[in-house]
Amino acid sequence: MPALPPPEPGDPVEAVDTPALVLDLDAAERNIATMAGYASRHGLLLRPHAKSHKSPELARLQLAAGAVGVCVQKASEALALADGGVEDLFVSNEVIAPAKLAALARLAGRVRLALAVDSPLGVQRLAAAVRDAGTTVRVLVEVDVGQGRCGLAPEQAGVLAAAVLAAAPAGLTFGGLHAYHGGAQHLRAPAERAAAIHDSARRVTVALESLQRNGIRCPLVTGAGTGTFIHETGTGVWGELQPGSYVFLDRDYADNEPAPGAPRFEHALFVKSRVISEHGTHAVVDAGHKAHAIDSGMPGVWGRDLEFGNGGDEHGILTRRGAEPLPALGDTVWLVPGHCDPTVNLHDSYVVVRGGLEHGKVHALWPVAARGALR
Amino acid sequence: MPALPPPEPGDPVEAVDTPALVLDLDAAERNIATMAGYASRHGLLLRPHAKSHKSPELARLQLAAGAVGVCVQKASEALALADGGVEDLFVSNEVIAPAKLAALARLAGRVRLALAVDSPLGVQRLAAAVRDAGTTVRVLVEVDVGQGRCGLAPEQAGVLAAAVLAAAPAGLTFGGLHAYHGGAQHLRAPAERAAAIHDSARRVTVALESLQRNGIRCPLVTGAGTGTFIHETGTGVWGELQPGSYVFLDRDYADNEPAPGAPRFEHALFVKSRVISEHGTHAVVDAGHKAHAIDSGMPGVWGRDLEFGNGGDEHGILTRRGAEPLPALGDTVWLVPGHCDPTVNLHDSYVVVRGGLEHGKVHALWPVAARGALR
Repeated sequence: MPALPPPEPGDPVEAVDTPALVLDLDAAERNIATMAGYASRHGLLLRPHAKSHKSPELARLQLAAGAVGVCVQKASEALALADGGVEDLFVSNEVIAPAKLAALARLAGRVRLALAVDSPLGVQRLAAAVRDAGTTVRVLVEVDVGQGRCGLAPEQAGVLAAAVLAAAPAGLTFGGLHAYHGGAQHLRAPAERAAAIHDSARRVTVALESLQRNGIRCPLVTGAGTGTFIHETGTGVWGELQPGSYVFLDRDYADNEPAPGAPRFEHALFVKSRVISEHGTHAVVDAGHKAHAIDSGMPGVWGRDLEFGNGGDEHGILTRRGAEPLPALGDTVWLVPGHCDPTVNLHDSYVVVRGGLEHGKVHALWPVAARGALR
Repeated sequence: MPALPPPEPGDPVEAVDTPALVLDLDAAERNIATMAGYASRHGLLLRPHAKSHKSPELARLQLAAGAVGVCVQKASEALALADGGVEDLFVSNEVIAPAKLAALARLAGRVRLALAVDSPLGVQRLAAAVRDAGTTVRVLVEVDVGQGRCGLAPEQAGVLAAAVLAAAPAGLTFGGLHAYHGGAQHLRAPAERAAAIHDSARRVTVALESLQRNGIRCPLVTGAGTGTFIHETGTGVWGELQPGSYVFLDRDYADNEPAPGAPRFEHALFVKSRVISEHGTHAVVDAGHKAHAIDSGMPGVWGRDLEFGNGGDEHGILTRRGAEPLPALGDTVWLVPGHCDPTVNLHDSYVVVRGGLEHGKVHALWPVAARGALR
């Protein structure tokens, strides 16, 4: 059965069928350069989070701009990105399943690999897998710095780091502390974000003292996201930044009140949609929450004074905010996703464009290589 | 790079790695039989909505139990299910893009195909595509029966149906009215749902009068969902039912207060997850909202008195509700998705099990064939 024809390089953007996940590559490249320049000016390592884009192509652009490697959140993401040529990966999450640990330990024979741990069982199982594979894995002890999710209490860092060091003969090395505060990223006022990260820094300091009491030097503190990285920088405690969303700048991040002097990013990720039903009161587009994630609220409507309302899995409902008329049947409507990471995860590929959304052309189709990489 | 090994038929369910989308096939078959028996007893056609499962295997089970065909929401879903052997498809949604209409018109040369319309432009473009393809497509005029999304006002049905009939030489046939009220499905009290569908029936009656004024006979009224089908049945107006979620019964549908005498369904769709981080206050599982959709709220925790809290894209946070202790590191936790349709759309395949979640075995892996079929 012939499928619907995919976009081809050289096609005008206006010909791209909907719904489509569209990457404005010019804007993404500017975002990548901005963040790389920031990290470099501040003498910080940059290890962008690839959970946002799940794309070897975007990871390679980040690496070419100076990133030391990328973070991933899942074993299967690490495997997919390694398949795509990425050679330095940090799984910034706990892995407990022996089958996953075995796969990661083998992967460490081909790429530089690091992993977060927050439990003695995690260290023990990882050490067993790495010993069996005959490889080496760098281990970061995750500390809870305010998120209340994974990570151990700061004062316990020293004991777990000692367990990692004790497993050196098995192939573990101690890489330092993983300290990320997800909940701080979308506090709207910069002063709130600064205060949250100030408290995170205090907790990292407690963890560092715990290491010191155990006679352990800390090679690195890694963490930070797109919403807070200037605050982590300001504390002087972190040595590596892990932002992910800056490549795309979703609606939720754009709604943050910017901190004075912070680098600015541009929207680079869009869902192209089309009006399929028109009414006096509203217009219905063909992109619902199977096409863009709504966990962080509704998408913005790019360049138009219209409100997007939840129309269910396959529909969005546009209403007027002011005098601007509703779009007509068949019209294109560009959406700025509420949350980039889970939006990308809904699509099999990016339609990569150059020259802008209005008059640009399709540059390539890039697979979302780690789409659905949940394990 | 060796991927993580997929589950194999015959594996015990306890060996299935996490997160995984697990279908309890025994329960799904009982749900399918229950709905088929209901439709048959009431002399109604059953055309289940395949937007829920996106699976040719599940569609074939529904057809074998007596369904006349299935509904889909997207042109690309129709193509995927036709590829999987489904021969009677209704796209219960508006399609405006000429490329999609051309593909559907060609598809109508291989399967029995129907499509919803709610605009003269929709009829005109569909007629042009069908004429070019030399095929025949059955057209249902969509009426807004309370959802406030697609569908025209009931009193306009006659004029649009006349336009469909005028396009008979091009290959269109008039199939009747598509009348679905999505917003009524999750009203919690049966009396509220009954009242909403009573009002929908009133609107359908207005549409039928509009057809009559135009001298047009209505062959069929189709609609209804898992939450309301007994109410549509009760009105005597609908001739075909379109429920989808009954195959799975997600947490949101189970939260509806059941109507007296209504058929009962069982949970058949689960996300298997695992504890990856444990704390005195909470346990963290490896399934966040990239593994199960949260547009209709958090998942339930199957068989345990625990609360699931949003832990972001890749994590869920379990807390106690009563005396039951938290699960331990590495323990399996079964989640009942908040909303089945978009949860299924996150996964590449179902791990199909027989014999129950505790002691059962893997029966097969079934692809979510129309996953990501957004166009």
